[in-house]
Amino acid sequence: VSSSDVVAAIRTDTLLVSVMHANNETGALQPIDEIAVLLGDDGPFLHVDAAQTFAKVEGGYRNPRVDLVSVSGHKVFAPMGVGCLIVRSNRRRPPLMPQVVGGGQERGLRAGTVPVPLVAGFGLAAETAWKARSARRDACERIRAEAITAFQPLRPVVRLPHGGLPHILSISFPGIDSEALMVVLKDLAAVSNGSACTSTHYGPSHVLSAMDLSEEEKEGTIRVSWSHADLDVPWNAIAARISTMTD
Amino acid sequence: VSSSDVVAAIRTDTLLVSVMHANNETGALQPIDEIAVLLGDDGPFLHVDAAQTFAKVEGGYRNPRVDLVSVSGHKVFAPMGVGCLIVRSNRRRPPLMPQVVGGGQERGLRAGTVPVPLVAGFGLAAETAWKARSARRDACERIRAEAITAFQPLRPVVRLPHGGLPHILSISFPGIDSEALMVVLKDLAAVSNGSACTSTHYGPSHVLSAMDLSEEEKEGTIRVSWSHADLDVPWNAIAARISTMTD
Repeated sequence: VSSSDVVAAIRTDTLLVSVMHANNETGALQPIDEIAVLLGDDGPFLHVDAAQTFAKVEGGYRNPRVDLVSVSGHKVFAPMGVGCLIVRSNRRRPPLMPQVVGGGQERGLRAGTVPVPLVAGFGLAAETAWKARSARRDACERIRAEAITAFQPLRPVVRLPHGGLPHILSISFPGIDSEALMVVLKDLAAVSNGSACTSTHYGPSHVLSAMDLSEEEKEGTIRVSWSHADLDVPWNAIAARISTMTD
Repeated sequence: VSSSDVVAAIRTDTLLVSVMHANNETGALQPIDEIAVLLGDDGPFLHVDAAQTFAKVEGGYRNPRVDLVSVSGHKVFAPMGVGCLIVRSNRRRPPLMPQVVGGGQERGLRAGTVPVPLVAGFGLAAETAWKARSARRDACERIRAEAITAFQPLRPVVRLPHGGLPHILSISFPGIDSEALMVVLKDLAAVSNGSACTSTHYGPSHVLSAMDLSEEEKEGTIRVSWSHADLDVPWNAIAARISTMTD
């Protein structure tokens, strides 16, 4: 998104501006710092979805103007099933309402017995991820370079947003449909043509639809992602499999 | 609760009747089967909170008239952080709305990435608990008998609801306040005078307040609970500690 588009959409009754720090399909970083400046001190509350960037990327969600940051534990290799909402209250305290009601745990903000092992694991995982962020980023970049090298002969369209996340690749191959690609690669790699949240929906994702792409690019784009620990991805075998589709 | 009180409270616009299978403070079983009969085929939906009884007790929440059963994983020794709502749809399908919205996972009923390890652990724990239910019940009854034997010289008021759960004891000691008791026993056992959900609230719990107890009993009642695995509870040391409070 462009920061000026975000600010232009603000009305007098806007309470909250919510922006992803990085898009989950393309890895593109959003201009949080610019938005923070444009909102000014008295503007709406600012929420950043840092699922893809927390403890990985500096800046952005760490901007002091950001009032709320949401984070998903398993994205930093914590046990699955835990996440958090960071609330910065040194400015104005955002008026939070519980989504889950019942026992009134966590001062009424979220009901349910707090799963202490998951929370402790999340804390350690976040600490570890933050300490290792440069090494993990470098590893992801090397894996991305390997992938691009393997795919090069297939003349793909690679979308590499400036400064984008190094563990996500949004790519399409001329004349190849993304659904067909997902089926053909099934036993080699799990790739997708949208987010897992919308995997039951057929057709181009809302993210790709909002981008300035040709119909062929929209229908053909897949999202490939990895972690710093995925050192042995069979990129050449994947590329060879894709090349059989164009023969 | 009495089944006739429950049914008397139903109005023409009542959509749902929700009853605990067992009370969490006293272990008393509620008359689910009676309520199910009185509701009849066309009455409101029936929800049973089986947190204390799932995979432990037969009957009740397993009655075919029960439309919805809620269960907490860690109560059957699954990892913390997972639970489930069982929806019986062979009759009429209850009109469910999500409490947690967002990614639209689980067919829109609960957002958030499904924590597969927790769910798998919950499944195995439930299976194990159900197979071992008689042995675990017997063990809990033996532990209860030990507790009552140790406490007997202190002339306690023990509330043992007919057929109640064998892992919960609601007990008071003449002239001893529950808050003082919790402090004195701190290093020996974690006992409470209400549920953990309401532990920040002082004063008698809403459960005790609804029962026909004297002021002294209300102020003095503690809840002690254990599991089949708690084989070495220092009941005699606990009783000795309590006896120092009456000297």
